[in-house]
Amino acid sequence: LTSKLPNTATSIFTHMSQLALQHQAINLSQGFPDFDPSPRLISLVEQYLRTGPNQYAPMAGVRALREQISDKVATTVDVCYHPDTEITITAGATQALFTAMATLIRPGDEVILFEPAYDAYGPTVQVFGGIPKPVILRAPDFAIDWSVVAALITPQTRLIVINSPNNPTARVLSDTDYQQLIQLIRNTDCYVLSDEVYEHIVYDGVQRRSAAHYPSLRERAFVVASFGKLYHTTGWKVGYCLAPHELTAEFRKVHQFNVFSVNTPIQHALADFMKDAEAYLELGAFFQKKRDFLETALQETGFRPLPCQGTYFLVADYSAISRLPEKEFCETLTKQHGIATIPIAAFYHRDINQHLVRICFAKQEQTLQQAVERLLQVS
Amino acid sequence: LTSKLPNTATSIFTHMSQLALQHQAINLSQGFPDFDPSPRLISLVEQYLRTGPNQYAPMAGVRALREQISDKVATTVDVCYHPDTEITITAGATQALFTAMATLIRPGDEVILFEPAYDAYGPTVQVFGGIPKPVILRAPDFAIDWSVVAALITPQTRLIVINSPNNPTARVLSDTDYQQLIQLIRNTDCYVLSDEVYEHIVYDGVQRRSAAHYPSLRERAFVVASFGKLYHTTGWKVGYCLAPHELTAEFRKVHQFNVFSVNTPIQHALADFMKDAEAYLELGAFFQKKRDFLETALQETGFRPLPCQGTYFLVADYSAISRLPEKEFCETLTKQHGIATIPIAAFYHRDINQHLVRICFAKQEQTLQQAVERLLQVS
Ligand SMILES: CSCCC(=O)C(=O)O
Ligand SMILES: CSCCC(=O)C(=O)O
Repeated sequence: LTSKLPNTATSIFTHMSQLALQHQAINLSQGFPDFDPSPRLISLVEQYLRTGPNQYAPMAGVRALREQISDKVATTVDVCYHPDTEITITAGATQALFTAMATLIRPGDEVILFEPAYDAYGPTVQVFGGIPKPVILRAPDFAIDWSVVAALITPQTRLIVINSPNNPTARVLSDTDYQQLIQLIRNTDCYVLSDEVYEHIVYDGVQRRSAAHYPSLRERAFVVASFGKLYHTTGWKVGYCLAPHELTAEFRKVHQFNVFSVNTPIQHALADFMKDAEAYLELGAFFQKKRDFLETALQETGFRPLPCQGTYFLVADYSAISRLPEKEFCETLTKQHGIATIPIAAFYHRDINQHLVRICFAKQEQTLQQAVERLLQVS
Repeated sequence: LTSKLPNTATSIFTHMSQLALQHQAINLSQGFPDFDPSPRLISLVEQYLRTGPNQYAPMAGVRALREQISDKVATTVDVCYHPDTEITITAGATQALFTAMATLIRPGDEVILFEPAYDAYGPTVQVFGGIPKPVILRAPDFAIDWSVVAALITPQTRLIVINSPNNPTARVLSDTDYQQLIQLIRNTDCYVLSDEVYEHIVYDGVQRRSAAHYPSLRERAFVVASFGKLYHTTGWKVGYCLAPHELTAEFRKVHQFNVFSVNTPIQHALADFMKDAEAYLELGAFFQKKRDFLETALQETGFRPLPCQGTYFLVADYSAISRLPEKEFCETLTKQHGIATIPIAAFYHRDINQHLVRICFAKQEQTLQQAVERLLQVS
């Protein structure tokens, strides 16, 4: 069997999580909370499991959930997506990203990505015969030079993938970034895939923007989000995709053959739970406390935290402690100090070593406390 | 946006289910039970929701569930699949089918299908640039002439898709069919995708076979199955894919970027529930009662039931009642008689009219009773 993904090995998230388990390390690598969702949300799922239906949901998703999402987007981004024709429930944000790319990408199509990037983007482009065109961003600010992006655009450019708040850099795109993107694609046929799974997880009053907010992006964007990140339920695998009518029609054709539909009782429970907006509007404040705790604690260590505007993640520079390349440093940190993190190098397609690790702080206070005690021992 | 699937409209299942709703018809169209899963299974899900984890499952699936599947296949098919390297949990059987095709198919690859066929196969092939090569089977026995299949094989043939027990024909492939398939692919590089979602739903002591049972098929087959069909939970969207080590390795590369992982609490609950094998070993007897009831009742009507060896479905010939083409007949049946079914024509890529409808009998006794009363009125 000739591999479509010859360069893909076990993902860094699986690898580090397994290593953490083996060495009884505190797992600050893969991005997931170590605490449970709201008991009320769990009760709602239980209620729908008991009363049913437990059979196929509508292909596009449970109508009540699509309505709630439409309301949420109207409230938080001030833009309307029609529940019938512009919102599709997916088996997590990953499936939404994959399906959007399946809808768009044909062999030879070029796709512009920004690295460091979530590890799924590049290989997914390749599954459909597309060619990833990475733009390399670097610490400390990972700023985008839009003239570099402009130079990459060709008639073959089919898609630009953006992700804000960004995993792993913890940066939020500015209004200026979006304006430049708009200028750039004005006279092209490019589509935009906007990964916004960390949408409400922003700090210090930073204003995060959705691609949906800009009419000239909205009209050619697939916007992807996740209930896993919204409600601390990464293991339930429910997300969604917003896209204008014509794009959604094509997206759903592929979606229908990829998974057909998504867990029915969970969709109904989420629809009820969404009526209470506080659960997501408080997310920023909730995670900011955790970021502050970690950031402050790191001052006492050899790790230098980079600015963190959002997400579950803080990037830390360890060059004062070690000159080891990132992957080796992360292995050592796990095995010898009992802390699993992710090397930023894992998010680039080529060998780039900046002495940076990504630390997931979406953890209980006691986990972070214990982690910090161990980090204080590293020198 | 140039569609990858210009000929794909709303699926016949969605269309007929919506029409049923509109006309308050009894919905015997889309294949799902109108009853709930075992209360014990629901309690198990509740237990795992409450105790967690509610975060990402391992990419390949929860280990305990893969072990149970391995045991089940060892017991029922007498063949070993290693839980670590040969079993992957998917977001329903549909996602397993899609991911298997994503793993294998490149532009220009030819894929042999048997029609009537589940509506996902052909379009999924097209999403990856492949070319479906349908073999047309006809009522009343839908038998495969393997010399016709042999004539379709070219150096471009990448995959043969089989489905037994078959949706919609309700037929089970015989040992002779499998032997002929084995002969046919002996000197080719073809892979086999075996859709076995109705594996335990067989009647009258018919011996159903898994592709996994034949060593020379096992070594090049993706075998797909579904907990939705096994435990009356089509809305939970959990299935799995069995494949030899090397194929599973490639399958998982795509799986990891398509959905990454599948609902965690449900996987744990399924693993516990599978320890009790009776729940699936009794499936045949359970559904046979329903088939018998419908088959007997149809004798009093103008519908002539075709032999039904397995699945949720019975194919009935209505030519004694009407000469309308199938699609029109199904619309009329829904609107005027309050019974929604599926035209067999919907499972062929070209216009073939045999005056046949597919009736789903995976319904409660009272639903079937009421349906039969309505069918008695049709003349
Ligand atoms: C889907 S597994 C990875 C989770 C995640 O988003 C991350 O750790 O970056
Ligand atoms: C996935 S929707 C269709 C359900 C089904 O298998 C059928 O009705 O044929």
